[in-house]
Amino acid sequence: MFLEIVRSSGLAHLSYILGDAGKAAVVDPRRDHDIYLEIAAREGCLITHVFETHRNEDYVVGSTGLAAATGAEVYHGKQMDFAYGTGVTEGDSFEVGSLALSVLHTPGHTEESISIALYDRGFSAEELVAVFTGDALFIGDVGRTDFFPGREEEMAGLLYDSIFGKLLPMGDSVILFPGHGQGSICGGNLAPREFSTLGFERRHNPALRHAAKEDFITAKTAERLFMPGYFERVHTLNQQGPPLLPALPAPLPLDPASFEDLAGGGTVLDVRSKEAFAGAHLPGSLSIALDKVSSYAGWYLDYGKPVFLVANTAGEVAAAVRYLVRLGFDDIPAYLAGGMFKWEVSGRPFGRMKAVHAEELVAMLDAGEDFTLLDVRAPGEFEDAHLPTAVNVHMGELPCRLEEVPRDAKVVTFCGSGERATIAASILLKNGYENTQACFGSMAACSNLGCPIETGVDR
Amino acid sequence: MFLEIVRSSGLAHLSYILGDAGKAAVVDPRRDHDIYLEIAAREGCLITHVFETHRNEDYVVGSTGLAAATGAEVYHGKQMDFAYGTGVTEGDSFEVGSLALSVLHTPGHTEESISIALYDRGFSAEELVAVFTGDALFIGDVGRTDFFPGREEEMAGLLYDSIFGKLLPMGDSVILFPGHGQGSICGGNLAPREFSTLGFERRHNPALRHAAKEDFITAKTAERLFMPGYFERVHTLNQQGPPLLPALPAPLPLDPASFEDLAGGGTVLDVRSKEAFAGAHLPGSLSIALDKVSSYAGWYLDYGKPVFLVANTAGEVAAAVRYLVRLGFDDIPAYLAGGMFKWEVSGRPFGRMKAVHAEELVAMLDAGEDFTLLDVRAPGEFEDAHLPTAVNVHMGELPCRLEEVPRDAKVVTFCGSGERATIAASILLKNGYENTQACFGSMAACSNLGCPIETGVDR
Amino acid sequence: MFLEIVRSSGLAHLSYILGDAGKAAVVDPRRDHDIYLEIAAREGCLITHVFETHRNEDYVVGSTGLAAATGAEVYHGKQMDFAYGTGVTEGDSFEVGSLALSVLHTPGHTEESISIALYDRGFSAEELVAVFTGDALFIGDVGRTDFFPGREEEMAGLLYDSIFGKLLPMGDSVILFPGHGQGSICGGNLAPREFSTLGFERRHNPALRHAAKEDFITAKTAERLFMPGYFERVHTLNQQGPPLLPALPAPLPLDPASFEDLAGGGTVLDVRSKEAFAGAHLPGSLSIALDKVSSYAGWYLDYGKPVFLVANTAGEVAAAVRYLVRLGFDDIPAYLAGGMFKWEVSGRPFGRMKAVHAEELVAMLDAGEDFTLLDVRAPGEFEDAHLPTAVNVHMGELPCRLEEVPRDAKVVTFCGSGERATIAASILLKNGYENTQACFGSMAACSNLGCPIETGVDR
Amino acid sequence: MFLEIVRSSGLAHLSYILGDAGKAAVVDPRRDHDIYLEIAAREGCLITHVFETHRNEDYVVGSTGLAAATGAEVYHGKQMDFAYGTGVTEGDSFEVGSLALSVLHTPGHTEESISIALYDRGFSAEELVAVFTGDALFIGDVGRTDFFPGREEEMAGLLYDSIFGKLLPMGDSVILFPGHGQGSICGGNLAPREFSTLGFERRHNPALRHAAKEDFITAKTAERLFMPGYFERVHTLNQQGPPLLPALPAPLPLDPASFEDLAGGGTVLDVRSKEAFAGAHLPGSLSIALDKVSSYAGWYLDYGKPVFLVANTAGEVAAAVRYLVRLGFDDIPAYLAGGMFKWEVSGRPFGRMKAVHAEELVAMLDAGEDFTLLDVRAPGEFEDAHLPTAVNVHMGELPCRLEEVPRDAKVVTFCGSGERATIAASILLKNGYENTQACFGSMAACSNLGCPIETGVDR
Repeated sequence: MFLEIVRSSGLAHLSYILGDAGKAAVVDPRRDHDIYLEIAAREGCLITHVFETHRNEDYVVGSTGLAAATGAEVYHGKQMDFAYGTGVTEGDSFEVGSLALSVLHTPGHTEESISIALYDRGFSAEELVAVFTGDALFIGDVGRTDFFPGREEEMAGLLYDSIFGKLLPMGDSVILFPGHGQGSICGGNLAPREFSTLGFERRHNPALRHAAKEDFITAKTAERLFMPGYFERVHTLNQQGPPLLPALPAPLPLDPASFEDLAGGGTVLDVRSKEAFAGAHLPGSLSIALDKVSSYAGWYLDYGKPVFLVANTAGEVAAAVRYLVRLGFDDIPAYLAGGMFKWEVSGRPFGRMKAVHAEELVAMLDAGEDFTLLDVRAPGEFEDAHLPTAVNVHMGELPCRLEEVPRDAKVVTFCGSGERATIAASILLKNGYENTQACFGSMAACSNLGCPIETGVDR
Repeated sequence: MFLEIVRSSGLAHLSYILGDAGKAAVVDPRRDHDIYLEIAAREGCLITHVFETHRNEDYVVGSTGLAAATGAEVYHGKQMDFAYGTGVTEGDSFEVGSLALSVLHTPGHTEESISIALYDRGFSAEELVAVFTGDALFIGDVGRTDFFPGREEEMAGLLYDSIFGKLLPMGDSVILFPGHGQGSICGGNLAPREFSTLGFERRHNPALRHAAKEDFITAKTAERLFMPGYFERVHTLNQQGPPLLPALPAPLPLDPASFEDLAGGGTVLDVRSKEAFAGAHLPGSLSIALDKVSSYAGWYLDYGKPVFLVANTAGEVAAAVRYLVRLGFDDIPAYLAGGMFKWEVSGRPFGRMKAVHAEELVAMLDAGEDFTLLDVRAPGEFEDAHLPTAVNVHMGELPCRLEEVPRDAKVVTFCGSGERATIAASILLKNGYENTQACFGSMAACSNLGCPIETGVDR
Repeated sequence: MFLEIVRSSGLAHLSYILGDAGKAAVVDPRRDHDIYLEIAAREGCLITHVFETHRNEDYVVGSTGLAAATGAEVYHGKQMDFAYGTGVTEGDSFEVGSLALSVLHTPGHTEESISIALYDRGFSAEELVAVFTGDALFIGDVGRTDFFPGREEEMAGLLYDSIFGKLLPMGDSVILFPGHGQGSICGGNLAPREFSTLGFERRHNPALRHAAKEDFITAKTAERLFMPGYFERVHTLNQQGPPLLPALPAPLPLDPASFEDLAGGGTVLDVRSKEAFAGAHLPGSLSIALDKVSSYAGWYLDYGKPVFLVANTAGEVAAAVRYLVRLGFDDIPAYLAGGMFKWEVSGRPFGRMKAVHAEELVAMLDAGEDFTLLDVRAPGEFEDAHLPTAVNVHMGELPCRLEEVPRDAKVVTFCGSGERATIAASILLKNGYENTQACFGSMAACSNLGCPIETGVDR
Repeated sequence: MFLEIVRSSGLAHLSYILGDAGKAAVVDPRRDHDIYLEIAAREGCLITHVFETHRNEDYVVGSTGLAAATGAEVYHGKQMDFAYGTGVTEGDSFEVGSLALSVLHTPGHTEESISIALYDRGFSAEELVAVFTGDALFIGDVGRTDFFPGREEEMAGLLYDSIFGKLLPMGDSVILFPGHGQGSICGGNLAPREFSTLGFERRHNPALRHAAKEDFITAKTAERLFMPGYFERVHTLNQQGPPLLPALPAPLPLDPASFEDLAGGGTVLDVRSKEAFAGAHLPGSLSIALDKVSSYAGWYLDYGKPVFLVANTAGEVAAAVRYLVRLGFDDIPAYLAGGMFKWEVSGRPFGRMKAVHAEELVAMLDAGEDFTLLDVRAPGEFEDAHLPTAVNVHMGELPCRLEEVPRDAKVVTFCGSGERATIAASILLKNGYENTQACFGSMAACSNLGCPIETGVDR
């Protein structure tokens, strides 16, 4: 048998392909499904089964595309109404060579969530060796239960039952294959480790420290996780089956004049590093560095508008396209041929964003300089530790809460390391906050320098 | 400016992409056009012009696909009725940055053939630096003029006028960029060299040694070049515009049982090496080693039947798919997962083909053994030199001339090196000639050994 | 943190690189250590620790090379005298970012064998999450204990204590990272699965079914595993530290004449597929298909003689070089440029090996044909099931037991699938057994066909 | 036969590998010679001949390395005393399969310069088809003749004789394969085109417009080309044979603290884009974007000091190493692991460089702002066109002419497009010019905007 983890960085999405004896199954495929075909081909296997552990909200699934390419059947929990695939329920079992994949209904994150127990029947037909837990149980955390407004307690209770009543009892020695790794927005605090067992999680997963159901529910309902607007669109796509993409979009390389003409009707997304954006950028462009596109593009892009890319190389353009398609953004007509260089030599003006380092920021605070220190991290992070005078507007809410940011003074954006601060700064610049700076290094640098730290909620 | 030659091996097809200042032109693109997009992207150029030097017969063009991907305009000679693109004629000129591309009407190979003169206007707006000659003038040869039955003399005369009247007079120092290199079926005897000038060709191209038009025509009409049946289909596709392929076909990996079931309705094409085919192969399969697929698959495959592949690796399958698509074979549903190994361990019987080396063959001849020595080379090659007792059936005609090959005796196929002999042997095996062997090394080995050689036509 | 498994196919060797916070550790690196540097670079880590779980016998370690490239320290069990590195013992512990690596002395396979417990201190400083077990405990098997002649019982007893006394008590939920996967010669019957836990192994590993020490010892000492001669050389290299290789050897492409001249003084190793070898091969060459080179080259090649390669492509040559270097064969002066094709067209004679399929073999047996059916599998495999009339000479012993193979009759070699049979057949051909054939498909095909099977030892 | 051009970007260096019938020759190999081995292997050829058209000054040759790897013989002009290889002279001829390579002595650039005439004897043994001209004759220019102080006229005269007396008379139809393409420092004004003929050059090469020898000499001796200091070191290395590199240097990934510690003793080279450098950089680092390293690193780095790299990715580090080795900088101990991001989050301060666009610059000029507009282009470029108030210090001379740049006012560096301006700005910043800015777009942008332009030499 073989099992390979396919990681989609940015989304911290983990999908799996496993197979035996010429057949293979895929769990939670991403939309650009070519990689599963490549692995299956390398292993000499035909993909026959595709499982969705739940209706995903943060990325568009590749199930229908993979089914179209291979003839595989798609399976998901029968408690939700999908426009494609086959509903399965507790106890349904599937054979893939010497492997058996058996379905557990583990609701909580969503109502129809399933986990899939993996048996290696050559060794034991009774004891499972591993379980795919989707977004029910992660390494170091559990899934969100806040997707059904008004039913938060109910969903948290369902998740408790799924984990404590079904998953953990399967045995300490069972290996965990979850749907996300560290960095996912589908949980709060996943571990930076990709391997664990039910036993290790039972004892050391912070989210499982509440053995009593009511405590677990209390803790879950107290969570305040950000819900980006694009989740709703992805929900719909994943329930109806997303448009099939026979090939990835191939944006055209346009010269500055043509690019400028066309881009006015869409969003200019600059995927270069935050340092390069700081140095020079197209006025009005949104800065999301390439490795953050999967995480944050869905928060700010508009499904109704085309995306125009600024990148260093054609390879970066291709990667950005892949990341955007995973979020359902398929309309990417063009990129700036030759990158910033061609823009600069064309004589067009460009923008700049001053990067401030931690020492400078502290000196500004010490000197009592008049500026807004805008901390764009999540409220929980802000409460744990922030700089004096900082105000907190979560970066995801920034476009709707611009009125809270004074326009008459300098703004320095701030986050955990400078990455989110730059995205936020680009939004401010786009919205006319000309005197916007970003603190590179941000809280990480301040901690290393031993800057003064405060705790508690924003006033 | 940049200019890059894109070679399609097997077809010995040469296409070109050149560009300047953000724009690029492509000459005679192949159907899997991704490579032009990649080069253009690397060069920061948008492809705006696609030229077809003539209606190609040996491969399916990528013009329409490339136009669909980029918005480029397609240009070809106006003397033929194409279902797409724009007709151009002598003197039409196009600018690509500092380059100028100027059309010459150079009929002969086809009626609407054009050549394209390239000017680097930064150096000279009057004197061209190079010319794309399509299938009019090659390095070491000229194009075929036998595509219009009954009009051979007329076409040869047109070609003479095109070459002697238009191309050569452009000047000795002009660099030649032809449509094919050595090994193409579109000419008889192309040089194994990719660079030349009109001057060098004028003096040393064997096909241009006849300065008198009537001698040139006599020589051309005396040529007997093979005309594979698939040319007609390719003609039609290229005139109407071939079906667009958003992505290359992705055949499925099937286990021996499923493969055997399905493959009965199509052709099993074995692209492994001739040695591997000799060692063990699927009974009834056609052997064309991967690097010969472009050259020969069109001769034997049926456009109405699906192709099923046997290869060593998934990478070889992907390459074979690419080669087949270039010939217009898009229906490739599956390949044998795990290759011959899986077939063997399934317990299914396999075929063998004995490979004979030159010493053995000579010994057989010396001993007066009773067998058919079947030389499958072109008649011209046979005439130049062949072994005693050899009979000549050109490999392309073999399927229609099987009755000329005795069924009651051993057959040893023979060619220039063993490659074509193996293809022919696989056809004989497929048709029930159980005692078929192929001479690996063939004429090359015999020459190196100093075997007895005869000349003249087959009796 | 990150952890990546580096697989060396053929050897079924598993090595590991893991890291955190800019530092990385490697467990049991292979000799061509470039891959660890690449992974470390990708993860932004400096390799600071290299662990050898034991003195390996089946491959040459990359510890000293990796240490030279990075400045890392090498650690191994202190019970053996190494010419490099630092001896460690039970309880020694090392920090790599938030990870802790703690040494367990787990002898049995060798005296100085260690296991390495992995702690993720962000989650638990007391409970390990995984353990690197080297060749003590595999998934589905345990390590060999037959490396110290006369001390087999003692070593088996030590291994029992290591596993039952130290490893298993660490807890059911601990994940297992062993030194080998399925196919390794360092154990008998490893599982075709790469993930497991101590709990799952405790209950389902066939080698652990004997809870009583004496039964375990009895079972281990009854094993008859093959001990290739090259182990001794590898032992020495690994204890003294193998020669450093600043770069992999780069054999020269030679034409047939030069190749023939030089190769006389060494071994010609043909790494093409068994089918290609069957079709045509250099007389006197040893056939080991590329993916079997790591497994079997050490059994037949002579450390004192240069190796000359026959392959299909330069890429295959490079892979073969890599595999040979892993075994300590560094003297690889040349390969046949252009492969078999150039040999054939040079007019040189080539050999053939007839491949027999299972149906044919059964028909030969049914017809009472006079031939030697030479089953070259391990004695244990032979005992479990073999064809009637088969004689058993283990392929590893074949060069020394040729006198047991009659020279006057046809020989058909036989194994599990045809791969080992072909290696053996090439050895017979090399030694003058002209009428040697190999059964492709072998026992697997016979099983699928339902051929008559016998059990028991060879007469 | 095959011929492939190997380009070393940055150096605009063109080397060539060509072969036939199992043998290959290389002309002017670069030091990282792996690519020639790969091409030769792909073509099934053994490299047997290496030609150096002259003692190169701008890059370290790979002849000795290639000879060590293949056993090839190295050939160069006999008029110079090399510590390796074989001296050849006019008329020496070498056969490579059906090709003949014949030596012409074509001094002028250096005394021992040779050109190599290429004959394809299958077509003509008398008329050459192409010529490798080294640094004698380029496309659009001729070689420098200023390497022998005091002998400029003599060398220019020699070059005239070589070109007008030997090369051009070989015939208009001969194809030119020169040693450099556009962008090389070995000529003044090479064409942006890679293919030409002696005929086209004779008529359109601006450097050949002087048919009279004295005019040619006058023009050549009037050239003022920059002579970077590293040429001398490269001269020595190339004459003595550079140190062999069994493998490229592999700098270690160091964390900010270790990097900072070590880098103090060397030069920190930042190969990120100029925009990224502008946004944030290590204080005191030298900015040369990756694709400019080959061109400019030799101008500023010190052979006696180690180089420490700042890059975005490990891939960029590897590319930078390759470029540095081509210039003879082999001591590259480390790079900053994790790049700028790790530096920033460590809390260390970073530098910034303000990028000014053309509109802003013009506005500053219009407003009569007090600042130094430092144009760092070559004097000839400056004379052709520069902005009002600009002062000219060639970037190569900047480190020695810092006293000409006032320290009390803002400096804006300026060049053709902003790339050289950034390198110069980084040198000013490194030297304490805190108020240094660079004009991105520079003259190209100004031209596109229609800014006021002046001509003539700097005051």
